[in-house]
Amino acid sequence: MSKQNEFERLRVVLVNTRNPLNIGAAARAMSNFGFLHLRVVNPFELAFREARSAVGAAPLLARAGEFKSVAEAVADCSLVVGTTALSRRNPRHHVRRIEEAARVIRKRLASGRVALLFGSEKRGLSNEDLSHCHWLLRIPTREVHRSMNLGQAVAVCLYELARDWKSAPQPEKYLHASAADLERLTSLMLDALRASGYLKTPPSAGAKVQSAAPPDEKIRRLVRRLNLSAKDAELFLGILRQILWKLRS
Amino acid sequence: MSKQNEFERLRVVLVNTRNPLNIGAAARAMSNFGFLHLRVVNPFELAFREARSAVGAAPLLARAGEFKSVAEAVADCSLVVGTTALSRRNPRHHVRRIEEAARVIRKRLASGRVALLFGSEKRGLSNEDLSHCHWLLRIPTREVHRSMNLGQAVAVCLYELARDWKSAPQPEKYLHASAADLERLTSLMLDALRASGYLKTPPSAGAKVQSAAPPDEKIRRLVRRLNLSAKDAELFLGILRQILWKLRS
Repeated sequence: MSKQNEFERLRVVLVNTRNPLNIGAAARAMSNFGFLHLRVVNPFELAFREARSAVGAAPLLARAGEFKSVAEAVADCSLVVGTTALSRRNPRHHVRRIEEAARVIRKRLASGRVALLFGSEKRGLSNEDLSHCHWLLRIPTREVHRSMNLGQAVAVCLYELARDWKSAPQPEKYLHASAADLERLTSLMLDALRASGYLKTPPSAGAKVQSAAPPDEKIRRLVRRLNLSAKDAELFLGILRQILWKLRS
Repeated sequence: MSKQNEFERLRVVLVNTRNPLNIGAAARAMSNFGFLHLRVVNPFELAFREARSAVGAAPLLARAGEFKSVAEAVADCSLVVGTTALSRRNPRHHVRRIEEAARVIRKRLASGRVALLFGSEKRGLSNEDLSHCHWLLRIPTREVHRSMNLGQAVAVCLYELARDWKSAPQPEKYLHASAADLERLTSLMLDALRASGYLKTPPSAGAKVQSAAPPDEKIRRLVRRLNLSAKDAELFLGILRQILWKLRS
């Protein structure tokens, strides 16, 4: 597998980006390091238009995909990685340092698509955004000044990804479940948990008044932690459908 | 020698920078990675004033040294390294790839000051500027799009310098589920699959006459593949108990 093919499989996903300069800077770093597929989720409309029309904007920006939700933007990816400036270990997610993260991502790119998510300038990725991620990547910045500029964070991540390609490991034989499959599984599981009485609340807006993480996010994260193969995801889908049918009959 | 002392000895030198946003971005990356000594040579006066007064500007900017010439800015350094986007080997200078360059710079920082020079946004470092350098550092960008944004180039260089300082990654805190938990989970799952009709055969010796792998083994392997933490195993046990109770009621 050539490096080109592997770089082709990365999707850089900018979520709720507000500043056109940052979208432009992210695109420039992508072009510098050879990752050409940008996706934007719910960008500030004007920012995206400005970035696209900026002088010297990469053709990459013109081709960028625009999505309404994280779920849609990552649906065809088998690994979804969020970036974070958090110092403490996130209690809900496994956090990898960038060097280790890059190794795992490179390995996965040998066989499937990977989405790398960057949150908004002010608040980073929301808990809902994070619930779509298999795990998080952290750049080891100083404790007293953790938060990086968005364009610089993208540059450092892509640099690290491109860095050691010569020593890239063998491709995995394991075919991983796509984000779309995992989202179907999450949804069936929530149905089964509600039908069984394990979850009391209906899947309505009312759930959002709870102070703890909403059950949807909790189950979404649980499903991502399982690291399912495409085959096992299919197996689980079948199991849950049968259980659900029985619970309802 | 502590990392602090070594980081203290680096001087990031911006030569003829024009855009205040780039000075600010360079300062931010320096603060992120813990290199706190900035020097500017002949900046566009207004740009430097704007950068200094920007919201959230690092104290680092307030303390930045201002110089009239490269010679003055690097006078107290024992190694002067220029950065370049040039693809071809510069005939006048030895060019090192960033990884090797970082190793040499780190070594030197153990005993003396090192200056790392970045040129203007448009033209990079002039031949005159370069003549003050011992050698050049190159970030391996794509041939078709070599030139990096100044703030991003600074971020990548400082990241690479800080990168291996503590080479050992953090140990995992992840507590894995015990085999006993996994076996309980397997057993509950088989019960649920039978109660739901997903599996037809009872858990009797009769199952063993089948030629394919017995369902017990199939499900046991499936559960092991999940690589569950102790906490998630507990969560799944609770879910399965509830589903089973509902299926049987």
